[in-house]
Formats: sequence, structure tokens, C-alpha cells
Amino acid sequence: MKLLAESLPDLSSGAVFLATGGGGDPHVSLLAAQQVLAEHGGVELIPVDELGDEAFVAAIGSVGAPTTSLELLPSTDDPAKALSIFEEHVGRKLDAVVSFEIGGGNSLIPLIAAAGRGIPVVDGDGMGRALPEAQMMTYPIAGIPSTPAIALDYMGNSATFSTDSTETYERHIRAMAQAMGGMITTVEHPMSGKQLKSSVVPGTVSFATEIGRILRRKRGNAQRILAPLREAFTRSLYGVPRHLFTGKVADYSSAIIGGYDIGKAVIEAFDGRGPKLEIDVKNEYLLARLDGQVAASVPDLITILDFETSTPINAERLRYGQRVTVLGIGCPAFYRSKQALARVSPQRFGFDIDYTPLENLGTRHQTP
Amino acid sequence: MKLLAESLPDLSSGAVFLATGGGGDPHVSLLAAQQVLAEHGGVELIPVDELGDEAFVAAIGSVGAPTTSLELLPSTDDPAKALSIFEEHVGRKLDAVVSFEIGGGNSLIPLIAAAGRGIPVVDGDGMGRALPEAQMMTYPIAGIPSTPAIALDYMGNSATFSTDSTETYERHIRAMAQAMGGMITTVEHPMSGKQLKSSVVPGTVSFATEIGRILRRKRGNAQRILAPLREAFTRSLYGVPRHLFTGKVADYSSAIIGGYDIGKAVIEAFDGRGPKLEIDVKNEYLLARLDGQVAASVPDLITILDFETSTPINAERLRYGQRVTVLGIGCPAFYRSKQALARVSPQRFGFDIDYTPLENLGTRHQTP
Repeated sequence: MKLLAESLPDLSSGAVFLATGGGGDPHVSLLAAQQVLAEHGGVELIPVDELGDEAFVAAIGSVGAPTTSLELLPSTDDPAKALSIFEEHVGRKLDAVVSFEIGGGNSLIPLIAAAGRGIPVVDGDGMGRALPEAQMMTYPIAGIPSTPAIALDYMGNSATFSTDSTETYERHIRAMAQAMGGMITTVEHPMSGKQLKSSVVPGTVSFATEIGRILRRKRGNAQRILAPLREAFTRSLYGVPRHLFTGKVADYSSAIIGGYDIGKAVIEAFDGRGPKLEIDVKNEYLLARLDGQVAASVPDLITILDFETSTPINAERLRYGQRVTVLGIGCPAFYRSKQALARVSPQRFGFDIDYTPLENLGTRHQTP
Repeated sequence: MKLLAESLPDLSSGAVFLATGGGGDPHVSLLAAQQVLAEHGGVELIPVDELGDEAFVAAIGSVGAPTTSLELLPSTDDPAKALSIFEEHVGRKLDAVVSFEIGGGNSLIPLIAAAGRGIPVVDGDGMGRALPEAQMMTYPIAGIPSTPAIALDYMGNSATFSTDSTETYERHIRAMAQAMGGMITTVEHPMSGKQLKSSVVPGTVSFATEIGRILRRKRGNAQRILAPLREAFTRSLYGVPRHLFTGKVADYSSAIIGGYDIGKAVIEAFDGRGPKLEIDVKNEYLLARLDGQVAASVPDLITILDFETSTPINAERLRYGQRVTVLGIGCPAFYRSKQALARVSPQRFGFDIDYTPLENLGTRHQTP
């Protein structure tokens, strides 16, 4: 299936919805992707099960604190250049590329790379959302080594990495992202088509595009968009969106710490009364608590929409006074396995709580 | 000329003398080098002018905060392993290796690497002393690119680097040193024999060995060793050692900041009276001030000897109460060029003073 420049705004907007606050601001990546796809007449989007078992695939995307993406703008050439550096490093041509995460700008980087090189991009990703660390991707959780991998910065400087441990790889690329100006492009997790099939969250590029289409067509009050969204999610790998809270951002603080955006948002009802929703951020929205009670937690999705337009809002765009609706969505089953929770449970982010699937959390959300 | 395991204690001790406080503690590197050289019947030490113009040479050494070297012990295998990773990365075999700096452990790492691989080590180095940053080496000052370069950590993880700028290279390896446990082995600055001849500080491996021999044979009070040291330095590329201060360490503080050891030492007379000598440290002893007046500054050498034994003391071994003699020594002429001072003047270390050669500083030292 050919993905054309015309469908990118929907993909981009749906990818911010699924990004749960992270993935980087897609605005400039969208412009870049539109230009590159227009030049090349689109890019081939290959369904996971049509990929050959022997195909050679790697994951590509940006690594850094998402706030950096507001100032250090993505380029149209870097993704394809990163692929070339990777191919030279491993001595083999790639047959396709795949996304780290169907989140924000990182949903578009693989398209720019693939179109620039004339190879297909896989309809799927390694998170089904966005998450802040490399070892939280489905690929390493399924046992695929992270390296050989390469990083490219905006100046054309590059580095390669070799390690047996994905936690170590994450530490190395994070250090390089900081040393290279805050944001880098990496190509990593080289794998066979067979390995990809055993690990990828399938269909998420198409699904994000579908979500984006709903957000565009039904644009308007966030309470009224819930019904069409629920309908779409019912047919997906995800759970059904649940309304957690509607109100205004009463407080939001964020700082770049250790190469991540670390922050906390407080949302209170429009009239300032009743319980408040607190959201903890590490690049992504990780934990939502209503008066101290867990309303949703990673790996389930927490998504913030603009109340008037239903536009999803990334963490680096969250501002004091914004009127928002917060949704919780059950994550794909992959992330509820013991193996995956060992990497992405709330404890792994320093929260002293066990993971409880969203749908078992009862009525811990705002009563309208 | 064959360098044998037997001469290593002298080389090591002379290299700590020339290290001006930095270069890393050589104790374990010395044991490792003795073992490897004994196994291989020594290592070929090749004079700079005997190296062919077409020879392929690279610099090898440890990068990190020297205090780390007290806990993260060097291995006998890593240096040769680092050479192999480098050779595989650049696709060419090395004909010889050379030292970053004739300082502490970094004077021995190239010997371990060369003996392990059966290639010669160049009698010379890229600093004539120790200095904390890559761009301060003679090789990049003479215009030799720093990359392709590789780093290897104690776990066997590796990385490669590619950049046009040595300042950028320094930032990248410093970030990786921190992410890789505080200390890494790098192989860098690949160059031809001709390039090496135009940049290296020649003869420093032999000279350090000569200084070490004097320190061993004349072991004793630091005041009495000055005469034989002066005689040796008269025949060298360096200036003649000047006595700056004798006293006890009244205060020493040090912290690892940004991957460097940053510290300050205060030395006062044995009777606590009279002016005090203050020494600023960034891995190396950089600036000595007597009651606020500059007594010696980088790129000239500041060396601290144990008062009773004349054993040179690295910064990470400096302790409260030690009785010491501080010497100043004019650096090789290379570092007094405008081109070199642009990288190593006191201003480059954040000190608001111009560089004045030691011998022009008059009598700004302790009167005995």
C-alpha cells in the first residue's frame, strides 16, 4: 500500500494521540515528511505479514528530550543519511525500516528515511505508543539485540555502538544525545523479518492514520469525540478509551533531567472544585492519580486532548490554563505480559505501586 | 630498541613526574605492563625519526577522571582488544602505536597494546606531560583529525566516533566515558608516520625512564634531588626545574565534575607561617599561586614530590598533611606557540590570566 503525503497530517495527529505525551513534537517532521513523500510519490507501507522472513530490517527514530524537538528542528536528509551510515557500518543493505514508537515525530522519521531510500516502511512499531527508554521497546523485550546501532547528530557527526545489554545501549545513546545537542537520530535493533513479526505491534501506522482521520472529521468538543474513538478502538489491539478527567491545567512544571523531560501536571475542574488529577511525566504521561488514587498508569495509555478541539497535546506543549480532557486506554496485550512488565511497570519508573490494568481500576475517574 | 619489563618501574615513576598530577594512577597499569612485556620479551620502542613516513599509527590511552583509575583497574587484554576493534573499524592494520600523554598510566597503556599485538611503540607522546582534554594534544593542534576513533569499556562494550572537530570528539568521548563507568580505552588520531613526525613530542618515553632512574637512584629529600634533575632536564626539550614551594598540604578538595577531577590544594610552610601556595586542579595541576601571585601555570609543568622520598604525587593521591615539594618546569617549545596556546593557555581553563613563561615570572616562589 502506498502512503501518500496527503495522509500524513492524519497519521501525525493520530500518532500524537497514541504518543501519550511523548515522541517529540511532529510539526516540523510532518512538513519534512510531506516534502519528501511528495518528491518520491509516497512511500510503500508494508503490512507486517507481507514482510519476508529473511528481510533485513532496522528501527529508526529520534532519541532525546522531546522539548529539544521544539528548537532543534528535524532535517529532510538526516534519516536517509543515518540509514546509509548504518548500512556501511553493518555491511548490509536494509530491505525495510520500522518505527521505535508510533508517537509524535517518531512515527514520521521512518517514512522520511524509507522514502529517501526507496524502501518500504513496516506498518507497525515497537511500542504501540511512546515510552522513554530503549529497553522498553517490544524488540529488545522479545530478545532482539539493540546493536550494532548508529547515531547521527544535526552537524553530521556520528557514532556507533556495540553492547550485549539494551539497558547499557540506552545509557550510551542517552549520553550521546546529550553530548550531541539534545536530540539524535539512531538506527538500531537490526532484525530479520521473522524476528520483527515476533515482536512488533502490528498495524499501528494505519491505525494512527485512522485515529487522526476521526480527530479531523469529528473535530470539536472532547466529550463528543469519545463515541467515534471508542468505535475505532473496539476494532484495535488496544482497550477502549475511558474518560478520566476534564478540567484546566492548574500547574505544570518540567525540566530536562538526565536527557529526559521530567515533569508533573495538575489538572483541576473548571470551577476549581472537587478532586484534582495529577499526572507524572517522564517524556510521556506515565501515571494519573485522582486525589492520590491511581486512575491510570503505564503501560496503559494516558492521553490529553484539548477540550474544545480534541487535538491531542504532547507534554512539551502542555501549558498552564489549558482546558483539557484526559483519557485512559488499555495498552496492547504484549505489554501486560510478565516479561514486558519487568521493563515497563510503574515500579520501573520509580512509582511505588503495582500495575493494575485500567479496566480493573473501577470508577477512579471524574464523575461528570 | 627493546624496552624490557625491568625498565617499567622507572618509566612509570618518571611518567608520574611528567604527568603534573594527571594521567591516572599507574600502579595497576605497571603490574599489567610488566606481565605483558615479560610474556612477550619486551616491546620495540621506535625512535620518532626511524618511523617510515607511510607507517600507519594511532594514539591509544585511557580517558576519564583519574580518580576512577584507583577503583576501576586496567586490564592486560583491553589495550590490544581496543586496537583490534579500531583496525576492524578502519579496515587497516596499525604499524605502530603512540601515547596520548607521557603521564601516569597513559604512558604504559600503549606498551601493553603494542606488546600484545607485536608492533612497536613510538618513543614520544602527544603532550610531553598530561593535559585533561583531547584537543590539547599536539596531534590535533598540528591539524590531524581525531576520528575515526573507537572506545572500549571494561565490560567489552564499544563505540566508534566520527566528527570533523576535536572539541566535539572530546565532548563525545567524555560523555561515553561517564556512561561507560568513568574510564574507557580509546584509539584515535590515526595518522601517517609523516604526520606523527610533524606533531609528536619526541623521546619522552626514554626521557621519562631517565627521570625515573634518577628518582630511584637519588631517592631521598626533595631538596637534594633538584641538582641531578636539573642536569637531566638541561639536555631535554623542557626547561630547567625550579623550586616553587616546600611545605605541607593544608587543604585539598576534589570532586568529579563533568567527568573530570576538579580540585584545589593549599600548601603551607611546615611551621604554618608565611605565604601559602594554592594549586588549581582539573585532572592535572594547572595553576600555582603564591599568595595570589602566579608562580607557574599551564602549559608549563607543575609537579608535586613527596618531601622525604621525592616520589612524584598524582592529584588523586594528594592528601591532607602530606609534606611535599612543588616544582615548576618550562614546557616544550611546541606548547608556547600561538597555535598551541589557543588550546592550552590558562584562559582555556577558565583562569583570567595570560600565560607567562615560568622563567619570566621572576622570584614568585618560596624563599627557602
